[in-house]
Amino acid sequence: MAEPITLSPIGRVRSRGNGQPAEIEVDSQFVEGLDRIESQEHLWILYWMHQLSGDDRVLLKVHPRGDGMRPKRGVFALHSPCRPNPIGMTRVRLIRREENRLLVEGLDALDGSPVLDIKSG
Amino acid sequence: MAEPITLSPIGRVRSRGNGQPAEIEVDSQFVEGLDRIESQEHLWILYWMHQLSGDDRVLLKVHPRGDGMRPKRGVFALHSPCRPNPIGMTRVRLIRREENRLLVEGLDALDGSPVLDIKSG
Repeated sequence: MAEPITLSPIGRVRSRGNGQPAEIEVDSQFVEGLDRIESQEHLWILYWMHQLSGDDRVLLKVHPRGDGMRPKRGVFALHSPCRPNPIGMTRVRLIRREENRLLVEGLDALDGSPVLDIKSG
Repeated sequence: MAEPITLSPIGRVRSRGNGQPAEIEVDSQFVEGLDRIESQEHLWILYWMHQLSGDDRVLLKVHPRGDGMRPKRGVFALHSPCRPNPIGMTRVRLIRREENRLLVEGLDALDGSPVLDIKSG
């Protein structure tokens, strides 16, 4: 077994759901890392799917899109949230930045999801 | 500050560098998660940039591509390896699977990098 890796979130997702734009709230000590981000049209958001249960993290085969009619496949061949390390990875459109907050379109993360990283996209 | 998150790698990268195909070696307890992955042409590999120093993880602004002639930018507006949580994210082409090993093209991760997740791409 490899050694565990410890991450400290850089912020969190504020989401109202229903396809509305989400907000990424970056912790104050990381705000400098947002410098000139306004010039980016798209960003990749890596976040932690914190609501996933421990049971969901041990499943290694699931039905694609939860459709019981489709045969199970390995989670590494899918985008299912069930996986040993439930890191969500979504490309979003940056609508605007307001100080430590990024308003983004296309992020389906649950409210309160810890954000692990933001990359140009 | 948010609570730290602990990840357990699912495998590691075996790389010979020089643009040669790399191998992803998945730990035996996660091999079931590779079921039917052969049908995927492309995959996303999330890995840990384990050789990055602690100093590189506190830098929040760097010169794009290390080019001192270009003004510094926030790391979240870039793809620089320097970032608080150095998670590498690369889309690769799956050449073939051999049991617990995936031979892939386009992965520039260093040899021994812990693999955190694999997603259809």
